[in-house]
Amino acid sequence: MPVVYIEDIARYVGQEVTVRGWLRTHRSSGKIQFLTVRDGTGDLQAVVSRGVVGEEQFAQSARLTQESSLILTGTVKADMRAQGGYELEVIRIEPIQIAEPYPIQPKEHGVGFLMEHRHLWLRSSRQHAILRIRHEIIRACRNFFDDRGFVLVDAPIFTPNACEGTTTLFQTDYFDDKAYLTQSGQLYSEATAAAFGKVYCFGPTFRAEKSKTRRHLMEFWMVEPEVAFAELPEMMDLAEALLSFIVGRVLETRRTELAVLERDTSKLDRVVPPFPRISYDEAVSLLQKKSNPIQPGDDFGGDEETLLSHEFDRPVIVHRFPRAIKAFYMQSDPERPDLVLCMDVLAPEGYGEVIGGGQRIHEQDKLMARIQEHKLPEEAFRWYVDLRRYGSVPHAGFGMGIERVVAWVCGLDHVRETIPFPRMLYKLYP
Amino acid sequence: MPVVYIEDIARYVGQEVTVRGWLRTHRSSGKIQFLTVRDGTGDLQAVVSRGVVGEEQFAQSARLTQESSLILTGTVKADMRAQGGYELEVIRIEPIQIAEPYPIQPKEHGVGFLMEHRHLWLRSSRQHAILRIRHEIIRACRNFFDDRGFVLVDAPIFTPNACEGTTTLFQTDYFDDKAYLTQSGQLYSEATAAAFGKVYCFGPTFRAEKSKTRRHLMEFWMVEPEVAFAELPEMMDLAEALLSFIVGRVLETRRTELAVLERDTSKLDRVVPPFPRISYDEAVSLLQKKSNPIQPGDDFGGDEETLLSHEFDRPVIVHRFPRAIKAFYMQSDPERPDLVLCMDVLAPEGYGEVIGGGQRIHEQDKLMARIQEHKLPEEAFRWYVDLRRYGSVPHAGFGMGIERVVAWVCGLDHVRETIPFPRMLYKLYP
Repeated sequence: MPVVYIEDIARYVGQEVTVRGWLRTHRSSGKIQFLTVRDGTGDLQAVVSRGVVGEEQFAQSARLTQESSLILTGTVKADMRAQGGYELEVIRIEPIQIAEPYPIQPKEHGVGFLMEHRHLWLRSSRQHAILRIRHEIIRACRNFFDDRGFVLVDAPIFTPNACEGTTTLFQTDYFDDKAYLTQSGQLYSEATAAAFGKVYCFGPTFRAEKSKTRRHLMEFWMVEPEVAFAELPEMMDLAEALLSFIVGRVLETRRTELAVLERDTSKLDRVVPPFPRISYDEAVSLLQKKSNPIQPGDDFGGDEETLLSHEFDRPVIVHRFPRAIKAFYMQSDPERPDLVLCMDVLAPEGYGEVIGGGQRIHEQDKLMARIQEHKLPEEAFRWYVDLRRYGSVPHAGFGMGIERVVAWVCGLDHVRETIPFPRMLYKLYP
Repeated sequence: MPVVYIEDIARYVGQEVTVRGWLRTHRSSGKIQFLTVRDGTGDLQAVVSRGVVGEEQFAQSARLTQESSLILTGTVKADMRAQGGYELEVIRIEPIQIAEPYPIQPKEHGVGFLMEHRHLWLRSSRQHAILRIRHEIIRACRNFFDDRGFVLVDAPIFTPNACEGTTTLFQTDYFDDKAYLTQSGQLYSEATAAAFGKVYCFGPTFRAEKSKTRRHLMEFWMVEPEVAFAELPEMMDLAEALLSFIVGRVLETRRTELAVLERDTSKLDRVVPPFPRISYDEAVSLLQKKSNPIQPGDDFGGDEETLLSHEFDRPVIVHRFPRAIKAFYMQSDPERPDLVLCMDVLAPEGYGEVIGGGQRIHEQDKLMARIQEHKLPEEAFRWYVDLRRYGSVPHAGFGMGIERVVAWVCGLDHVRETIPFPRMLYKLYP
C-alpha cells in the first residue's frame, strides 16, 4: 500500500493509498463523516462511512478533535465537489494522538494571541501560502545569482565593527572581546568581490531599532550582491532584473498560494522592465507636489516611501541622494559632489524600500577622509581600507530585504507574517 | 568591443576583447612581458609586446605590482602552452590602481598571518577552489531538499531558550530581556514539520566553546531537515542520500577545484550507498579492539571519531547511543530503554562527525519527564511541549555541519579555511 503525500494524490485515482496527517475540519451527517485532512503538502477530503469502517472506527473518528493526528487508508476518487478535486473513501482510520482543545479557532483572533501561538499558527492555510512564497522567493534569488556566475560567499555574523553606526547594534561578549551582530554583509562582500569578481551573500542580519513599524523586524534576511568593476547604472539594471525575475517566478509557480492570499496578481503582472528611474531631486519635487512636507536634503521616512511608491505601477528606482544623509562608504557623484551614487528601489502599492545600494568609494584617500569625518574607529576598518591599497577597482552592490519583498509579493500589510518566527520589539517567544 | 570574463574566453578566439582584473604574476624577457591576470572567474596569460603597445604602455606595464588592478584589451589566441589553453595578445593596457607591496607572497606564511589578512588571502587559487566547492555544496543541499518537496522554513537566530545546555551560548541584551544565539534550529523545525510535513532550515548557528580544535568554529552553518511521521531508519536513508548527492555533485562540477587542492578523488568516488551502519555498542567494541580506552557509556571525542572514521571507506552511520549522554528530546529505543534512537554520521579519512540526528520524543508525558530530569525551564519550553498536545506524531531529523563537509570533501586538515571569514577563539578580525 503506497504511503502518499496529498500533493501527489491525483496520480493514485482508483488506487488504495495511505495518507498521514492532521484533522482540519470535521462534519457529520448521520452515517457519513467528512474530514478535511492536511499533511503539509495539501488538504484532502476524506469520507468515513459507518458501513465501510464499522461501528468502532466510526465512533473513534467522531471523537477526533481539530489538529488530531491520524493515518487514513482508503481509495482515491476524483470528485469535482471536493476541494482539490479528489477525495478519499476511507477503509481504515487510525488516530495517532487526539489533540487537546485547539487554541486557534476559525473565528478572528488578535495578532498578539496568534503570535503567542506562532508555532501552531504556522499550520494555517494562509501561513502556508506566505511561507511557500517566501521559499520560492529565496530560491529565485539564489537561482538568479547562481545562473549569472555569482559566487556565494557568506559574510560573517559576528563582526568587530559597525557598518552604519553603533546605536542599533546587538552586542555580545566574545570571550575577552565584544562582538556585534552584522547589519549587512556589504563590507565583507567588497573584499570577496575583489577576489571573485561577482559575489553575493545571503543570511540573517540584525538591527536593534527600538521602533514598531509594519516594515521592521529585529532579525531579517538579506541578499547582497557585489560586483567588481560595476558602477551605479549596472546596479540599477541588476536590481530591475532581480525583482522582475522573482515576481515572474512566483507568478509562474505559486498561483495557488497567491489565490489563497487573494492577491491581485494583475498588479504583479506589471512588474517588468524598465522600471522608472528618478533622481532624489525629482522625488522631492514629486513629494512636495503631493503636499508632503519634505525639504531638499531630508531623508525619506516611511510616509515619503509610501507616497512615492503609490505613484508608480511597478518598482521605482530613486537615485543620487544627498551625501550628508548617506553612509560613509558611498561614492560621490562626479557631477554633483553633494550627492552620492546610490539608489533605493521602492516597491509599488505603498510597500516602500525593498532594495538599497550603490557605488562604493574606491579611492583610498577619499575613503580615509570619510572614515575620519564620520569618526569611525580606523583600526577596525584597516582591512576595509586595505581593499583600496591592493588593486582597488570601482565596484557597486546592493542589499535586498527578503521580508519586505515577501510582504509586497504576498500583499501583506505587515512584515511580521513573512518570516517563520518573527523577532520584534519585546517579542522573542516562541 | 566585448568586455568578457576569463571563464568565457574560449568563446572569443580570434576576437578583440576587454578583460578587467588583477595582476597575479609578471615575467619579462626584454621586449615581451607575460602577465598572469585573474578576474575572479579564472586566470589568463596576457602577452604585452613593446612593438605592439608602444614604449609608454610597455614601461607602464613593467611597473605593475602584484594585485594591481588593470584593464586589458587584446586578441584572444588559443595557445596550448598557456595556463587554461588561451592567451591574450595585448593591444592596450590600462592600469587602474598600482597596488602597494602586497603582503601575501608566494613564499610560505604562517596561518596566523594569513588569517590576519583573510580579506586578501581570499584572492588565492586555493581559497578560490575551497569557496567555490563550498558554494556548490550549499547549492547541492538546497537542490536536494527542494527537489524532494521539503519546504525551507528558517528557524530564528534569537532564541529565548537553549537547545542543548546554556554554557556554550552567546547571549545578547534584547531590549528588557536576554536572547541567546541559536545552536540549532531543530526545536523550531519540529514545529514547522508539524505544519508542512517535510521541512529544512539552513542558517548560521553559534557555539561559544572555549576550545581550539581543527573541527570547531564559533559560527558555522547548518542545514537541518525534519520530517513528520519519519523514524530513525528513514533518517539514515536520507542522510546517506544527501551525502552521496553532495559528493556526486562536487565530483561532477568541481573537478578543476579538486585538482587545485590535489584532492584524491578516488576516495570521494567511493561515497555511494549503502553506508555501513553500526550500533554504538559495536562501535565501542571496534574502538577497544583498536586499543582506544573508551568504556561502554562514554561519549565519543575527537580521537574516537577519527579512529572510527578511518575504519571505513565511506561515511559510517553509528546509531543508538546511551540515553545518558544524549540530549533530552531524543526518543528511547523501545527494545533498549537505556539507548536513544539517534545517529551520528562520520565522514571517512578521519574527518569524523558531519551529521547528528535521530527520532524525537513525541509523547507529552515522556517529554515533560525529560525536561524536568534535565532541569530545563518549563515555561520556555511550553510551545515545544504544545507540539505534543496538538496532533503529535513520530518525527525525526538531523543537522549537517556545512564547514565539516567542506573540509572533508576538499581534504583540508582544519575547518578554518572552509568559511569566508572564520570566527574562532579570540579571532574576530577581519
